[in-house]
Amino acid sequence: MTEPASAPDAASPTAPSGVSRRRLLGAAGAGALAVGAAGVGGYAVGHAAEDPGEPGQSSYAFGGRHQAGIVTPAQDRLHFAAFDVTSESRDDLILLLRAWTAAARAMTSGRPVGEGVPTSYDAPPDDTGEALDLDASGLTLTFGFGPTLFERDGKPRFGLGGKQPAALRELPHFPADKLDPARSNGDLCVQACAHDPQVAVHAIRNLSRIAFGTAAMRWAQLGFGRTSSTSTAQATPRNLFGFKDGTANLKSQDREGVEEFVWVGEGDDPRADWLAGGTYLVARRINMQIETWDRSSLREQEALVGRDREEGAPLSGGTEFTEPDFDLQGREGPLVGLNSHVRLAHPSQNKGVKMLRRGYNFTDGSNALGRLDAGLFFVAFVRDPDVHYIPMQTRLSAQDGLMEYLQHTGSGLWAVPPGVRRRTGFVGDTLFA
Amino acid sequence: MTEPASAPDAASPTAPSGVSRRRLLGAAGAGALAVGAAGVGGYAVGHAAEDPGEPGQSSYAFGGRHQAGIVTPAQDRLHFAAFDVTSESRDDLILLLRAWTAAARAMTSGRPVGEGVPTSYDAPPDDTGEALDLDASGLTLTFGFGPTLFERDGKPRFGLGGKQPAALRELPHFPADKLDPARSNGDLCVQACAHDPQVAVHAIRNLSRIAFGTAAMRWAQLGFGRTSSTSTAQATPRNLFGFKDGTANLKSQDREGVEEFVWVGEGDDPRADWLAGGTYLVARRINMQIETWDRSSLREQEALVGRDREEGAPLSGGTEFTEPDFDLQGREGPLVGLNSHVRLAHPSQNKGVKMLRRGYNFTDGSNALGRLDAGLFFVAFVRDPDVHYIPMQTRLSAQDGLMEYLQHTGSGLWAVPPGVRRRTGFVGDTLFA
Repeated sequence: MTEPASAPDAASPTAPSGVSRRRLLGAAGAGALAVGAAGVGGYAVGHAAEDPGEPGQSSYAFGGRHQAGIVTPAQDRLHFAAFDVTSESRDDLILLLRAWTAAARAMTSGRPVGEGVPTSYDAPPDDTGEALDLDASGLTLTFGFGPTLFERDGKPRFGLGGKQPAALRELPHFPADKLDPARSNGDLCVQACAHDPQVAVHAIRNLSRIAFGTAAMRWAQLGFGRTSSTSTAQATPRNLFGFKDGTANLKSQDREGVEEFVWVGEGDDPRADWLAGGTYLVARRINMQIETWDRSSLREQEALVGRDREEGAPLSGGTEFTEPDFDLQGREGPLVGLNSHVRLAHPSQNKGVKMLRRGYNFTDGSNALGRLDAGLFFVAFVRDPDVHYIPMQTRLSAQDGLMEYLQHTGSGLWAVPPGVRRRTGFVGDTLFA
Repeated sequence: MTEPASAPDAASPTAPSGVSRRRLLGAAGAGALAVGAAGVGGYAVGHAAEDPGEPGQSSYAFGGRHQAGIVTPAQDRLHFAAFDVTSESRDDLILLLRAWTAAARAMTSGRPVGEGVPTSYDAPPDDTGEALDLDASGLTLTFGFGPTLFERDGKPRFGLGGKQPAALRELPHFPADKLDPARSNGDLCVQACAHDPQVAVHAIRNLSRIAFGTAAMRWAQLGFGRTSSTSTAQATPRNLFGFKDGTANLKSQDREGVEEFVWVGEGDDPRADWLAGGTYLVARRINMQIETWDRSSLREQEALVGRDREEGAPLSGGTEFTEPDFDLQGREGPLVGLNSHVRLAHPSQNKGVKMLRRGYNFTDGSNALGRLDAGLFFVAFVRDPDVHYIPMQTRLSAQDGLMEYLQHTGSGLWAVPPGVRRRTGFVGDTLFA
């Protein structure tokens, strides 16, 4: 059995010298060329900003004012990965981001990474091949920068020390957090969403492969079913508690809401002009105590959620999209209880804050106690985590009755740079300008 | 935080006494009734035997001469689970199989388990709810009995000692096996396949919940993409090596081949008449050394597989479905190499044996070394593992060049009873007759 090499290897397409470097640059060049060609057939810079697209589209534009995969109608499957940069060279980091950009452009348009089939049979193929017969399957790739990319152990990295956004810090400890460091944080993150999980897995694998020698995967999470709608054209899906999730989610059709609560504005942070048009990605791996939940009564379940299970209507009456009436009293107090999730998470109870969530159901088998290791991989995109996430999560962690059935086991916060606007640009180029 | 109870609980729908027993029987009764009603609308005993169905069908019949999920055109997603029976009562085991049968009938026809919404809000819902808005999504549930169901530590269990099929033994140790006991074997197994992973996960979760107090999940595996076709109407998918997999797979249209190599015949095993019309399920969790593979040349990859990557044609020429010519010589020996996977696995090199494989790609994140924990969850259905699996795997383990990139980390063998033929029947009823 061959021992897998963990040291840089001249045969790797991303090793930092010689043949392999040429291969990498070749791949990037081919990607850029093909995007140019695709431009004739419909690629438009800024497209992603103007039109998030329809659910189920076979492909979504990669470039634009904002990154795709945020207001894009949530695809059904997720592969999320966090990476740590193993090189301390700014040039290596930029080279990686350029190579990732070229690969992302190719894969999101349904093309293989690089040349597909190499000109020489004596070299590894540029693309690992398992998605060769599949189309783009609505793939989006969304990249983020963690706090540790800017500074680690008190020392600035990659010459980025002065550019770290003020809000880009490790999230605070919330009550009942039980975070696994091996499922938390990371210098970089990539969210791959697609209609077909094989396409999402292929994308993360190839990005990971391209990173070899510069960055290494820290952790990853597969999500098998979306738990949020980001478009009014999508039905509300259900989480593993069996309830509709995300009825009140911020939808892309709410243009004003998206501008106010998702995209970082020009003057938001003087240290981080580069982030204008970007956003922050909050990820939380939330384990559900499935077996316990499954033994609680429907009455308790609905009281904790604040909605009925069948329709998703608030317990104050109406149908799924009826606004909850938090004042309506029943015999034992408000029909929508004081510690119900719907009340605590509702904009009217959170200074009007709306959140664009884009989470996924996950199951990773059973844990050591034989219980399902399953739950919700929460993903939200917020303009300012200090205003639009942390206050709400602090309240939920302390007061939400559902917390009895939840345990947060992973966490991360990343700044998501704006979209790539220029054909010669790359993900995060505004940060390195 | 509530401590999840692990002891039998009166509130559980499957606790073996009182209210919960009534609830369980009620659920089973409702299932049987609904199947009766569905019969008017098309349910036909024996249907699954006569017609495996088309790829992408929204539902497949549960009952029939054989269990569904074997010659059924392989659906795209898998959730596989192994259980250990924690009770030593034969009645409990039969009750579990009856309850599983009722639930399987409901879920495979797109209905919730039991009544869906309970008549009392003070009881837990019969169905966990996360698939309430989804249709059957082609769900099949295939049940198997492991050797330890019949005998454990030299002692017969459940009065089944005399009925253990001769071939139902733990698989032998193959060279290079590195099996994890926590991913191997089990008294019972359930293969859930569906077009939508949320439907497959929902099915295993609800079967696990029904088993509470009688059986506990031992391990589970999620598969995100099929690696085999079981119908000529399906395109050949690709495995994580990037190659088409299963080109030469036994297809359901090969009626004679299926009779000869899949279904246990009437006189196959005098001790196990009950298994006639059934089969054996072999499962192997095969980790791929992805990073190492990705650094090998296309020439080496194709030589090891014995086919070209792009088309899947044998290296002796032609197109994907051209039969390999094992005698055709190149400059350095046979074009299809002596240690190539195609040659070693081909029926002509294995006494004519054909195998119905039904495997899935998996990825479970990264391992402790930061390498992808990914590969192929191999599933095959064979008439006699001693003839149709073990000899071939022994050869492959010793000679297949691909083994350098593979590591078997999980394993199991189960006898798969015939389909449920009678409306009052249950999975495995022939064993308990």
